[in-house]
Amino acid sequence: MFVKHADEEPVNEVAAGTNTSMQVLVSSDEGPNFALRRFLMEPGGGMPLHTNAVEHEQYVLRGSARIRIGEETFDVSADDVTFIPAGVPHSYEVTGDERFEFICVVPNQPDTIELVEEWGC
Amino acid sequence: MFVKHADEEPVNEVAAGTNTSMQVLVSSDEGPNFALRRFLMEPGGGMPLHTNAVEHEQYVLRGSARIRIGEETFDVSADDVTFIPAGVPHSYEVTGDERFEFICVVPNQPDTIELVEEWGC
Repeated sequence: MFVKHADEEPVNEVAAGTNTSMQVLVSSDEGPNFALRRFLMEPGGGMPLHTNAVEHEQYVLRGSARIRIGEETFDVSADDVTFIPAGVPHSYEVTGDERFEFICVVPNQPDTIELVEEWGC
Repeated sequence: MFVKHADEEPVNEVAAGTNTSMQVLVSSDEGPNFALRRFLMEPGGGMPLHTNAVEHEQYVLRGSARIRIGEETFDVSADDVTFIPAGVPHSYEVTGDERFEFICVVPNQPDTIELVEEWGC
């Protein structure tokens, strides 16, 4: 059992992103079934199109972004919810001047991230 | 895959609570491993001491409350995170004049809620 403030948690740069970092709020060692993380994307930041081996259930806290999931694009802001199934390509692009923050819950299962190349040569 | 705004989801009264309701944002039918819900507790509301058969991973969105977990009491507000293991007694009491809102994630496992009687006779 614990109670903590999210701002106290270490901030880890996300290598696959731009101006993007992540905090583990409830880790896979602490929670028996899933992990609770908070992503922070600064203005101009985001993540390129990629897939994960696990699903995401997300809740937007503040800021705004354009999110692509599969072939669809959505403009999201506070209190929007997204469900991204495992293996579905998705990307994030911060819009506006505020930091984009969202909760992202993932199951305690091995994950791999793979960037999606749309235009080969 | 979907994107939705939390305010659009049906609001279900929580029978065990006072002035307390809940929205299912990602259901156990939609998410393969866990469900994402939002609880809304109006000023004066809350939930009495109880246990659940499953753990809770929670993120406070807005408002404030006094939460008891086991033998400890915490005053929580926006961006606080709580982890309540399965079987640990917990209660909620809204403090202040604003609605208390939080995300609560639970695994896709059978749950039962049991009220805790502290003073028998």
